[in-house]
Amino acid sequence: MRQAGPVAPERFEVAVTPPYPVRVGPGVLSGLASLTPGGRVALIADENAGARYGDEAADALAADGRQVLRLRVPSGEDAKRIEVWAELLGRLARAGFARDDAVVALGGGVTCDLAGYVGAAYMRGIAVVHVPTTVLAMADAAIGGKTAVNLPEGKNLVGAFWQPRAVLMDVRTLRSLPPRVFMQGTVEVFKHGLLADPALAEAVVSGALAPDADDAALTRWLAASGRVKAAVVAGDAREDGARAHLNLGHTLGHALEAASGHRLTHGDAVAWGLLYAAYLSPRVLDVDDAEEAQALVRRLIRTVAPAPPPAASWDELAPFLGRDKKTRGGRRHWVLMRAPGRPTLQHGVPEDAERAAWEAFLADPVQAERAAAELPAAKGEA
Amino acid sequence: MRQAGPVAPERFEVAVTPPYPVRVGPGVLSGLASLTPGGRVALIADENAGARYGDEAADALAADGRQVLRLRVPSGEDAKRIEVWAELLGRLARAGFARDDAVVALGGGVTCDLAGYVGAAYMRGIAVVHVPTTVLAMADAAIGGKTAVNLPEGKNLVGAFWQPRAVLMDVRTLRSLPPRVFMQGTVEVFKHGLLADPALAEAVVSGALAPDADDAALTRWLAASGRVKAAVVAGDAREDGARAHLNLGHTLGHALEAASGHRLTHGDAVAWGLLYAAYLSPRVLDVDDAEEAQALVRRLIRTVAPAPPPAASWDELAPFLGRDKKTRGGRRHWVLMRAPGRPTLQHGVPEDAERAAWEAFLADPVQAERAAAELPAAKGEA
Repeated sequence: MRQAGPVAPERFEVAVTPPYPVRVGPGVLSGLASLTPGGRVALIADENAGARYGDEAADALAADGRQVLRLRVPSGEDAKRIEVWAELLGRLARAGFARDDAVVALGGGVTCDLAGYVGAAYMRGIAVVHVPTTVLAMADAAIGGKTAVNLPEGKNLVGAFWQPRAVLMDVRTLRSLPPRVFMQGTVEVFKHGLLADPALAEAVVSGALAPDADDAALTRWLAASGRVKAAVVAGDAREDGARAHLNLGHTLGHALEAASGHRLTHGDAVAWGLLYAAYLSPRVLDVDDAEEAQALVRRLIRTVAPAPPPAASWDELAPFLGRDKKTRGGRRHWVLMRAPGRPTLQHGVPEDAERAAWEAFLADPVQAERAAAELPAAKGEA
Repeated sequence: MRQAGPVAPERFEVAVTPPYPVRVGPGVLSGLASLTPGGRVALIADENAGARYGDEAADALAADGRQVLRLRVPSGEDAKRIEVWAELLGRLARAGFARDDAVVALGGGVTCDLAGYVGAAYMRGIAVVHVPTTVLAMADAAIGGKTAVNLPEGKNLVGAFWQPRAVLMDVRTLRSLPPRVFMQGTVEVFKHGLLADPALAEAVVSGALAPDADDAALTRWLAASGRVKAAVVAGDAREDGARAHLNLGHTLGHALEAASGHRLTHGDAVAWGLLYAAYLSPRVLDVDDAEEAQALVRRLIRTVAPAPPPAASWDELAPFLGRDKKTRGGRRHWVLMRAPGRPTLQHGVPEDAERAAWEAFLADPVQAERAAAELPAAKGEA
């Protein structure tokens, strides 16, 4: 058996019904079988994670006497299609999977969303275990039970709330991530810190959660992030109330992704969305100190170094903000901050405030810094 | 406004979380808008029900200021395909449906299953209202929240438990059913009577629930059937315990459907499945009076007049019984009856008992009666 090393895993529970355990640490993948129910297990992995960790996961299950069906899905957002999902369901059916069998998702957020929705739908729902292998998936997709695939008409339009039976975050799997991808994932970790854990936000902006961090730091901060998400989800499993706070930075972030033709990644877009929220909040709410959140997010952006947002006017951007974000009167609702640690869902924000915040956002000094920094890098990558 | 006539609707609630109302009676369709949430409503109807009742349903919604998207699906089991379901989801997306909009299913069991799964999946779940227009759909698909589509590998393999917000059973819609289809639907009503309501079972076998029954009788007996199902579902919304009793007659019924190449209809197959259960029960359980249930189901078969079961030996039939019905030791579990009103889920039934019950089932006098009765009818229909 593989040794877990000197760093002890962190453990906590997501207190939905039924509650499920989360394990964070180096080597927790070796405990996969004990947390996975079922005689047959469909191990659904994306190409990257499957090639690197698929054998270890399959061996851990087979050593416990499970019959393992290994299924490979493409890496990247394009895998989240109904056709891919339907093919996976057919594979389970042809292998004779029954209601007491299980799915293990091994990979990034796309794999967790897709394989989670396979588990949610097969025979109206079988057990799912998530083994996220990216910072973003550990911070976001693996905890909370949101599963989905895309339609040509939009992302995540088809899915289910389907809580996993367990989540294993083996921080060793982060060692193979490209540094840019690692850092983009830390934006969601920062968001959790901004919502509820100041020390966690500070860890991200100070560079303590970075590709060169040791196992102890990775374990500590990813567990801290997971605990924030678990607490929010446990209070609101179906997203009717406080769970909406997790969308901090996402309303504008999604619009930026769409307006850029999805050249801007999710993490980069949410980083900018958080900066925008820091400018919109004082225009709509009584805030203690408008500049506190702005300064904190500015440090995030200098740390994560997102690609610049698309150069769009408010009128060009507004159509991408999505009809479902509007209240009946035509005004949008936004997740805003009274102060770090004090989020609020604000209904009916006037468009003048949205527009003025966008102007202030464009005038923030980090915009010029990022644009200048990107130029040589963009040339180098081309 | 249309008058509901002198027969008052019956009302009851399915006590899941959140509870939802069921209305049964002539003319209850006119109250559709008040029980349907959402600004936009996708009215998903099969060809038969849509042609007959689609305008009335759409008008009732439009008169209340709703924006109605009318979607037509083919009649028959072939509509329950992932491709049809995905196309419906795309139509909702292109019409800009949001999380607070709704789906109304208008039609038989196929339409309730398919449209229900559209509602379950769109944006991870929006409100669904069922308006079943067949006896079978009123007795079975509309109450309980089981939604599904088929895979080429098997029926109902993909779906969700998704409770509707309301169920409207307008008994006038049964007036246009072919008498054979009406009677086949009464098999599930009888099953509910056999499980928990002797007067309801007697109503079916005595012909009180039949195409020529008046509105009062249709309302009374379909409400009684719905109340049995509602009570079972409320106790066990996700089918882990007592809900399994609703599968009485279905394990063998599904095998007969499959063994006949799906020429035998669901209602006919379940009628035979109930007779088989009446023969298997005394071979496995202490029963008060083995012949009581056999005699009652024999009366059902004379009333409903199902097509004969396929002429198969036990060894030919057994492969169609389904791997998921087997316990780990290779023995099957069956829903059996100690007496009318006393169902039980029996694990690990020995195969000798199954085989002996099949021989006794084939020797029952109704087999010869049905075979003789079918010959001229089959010729006439060919």
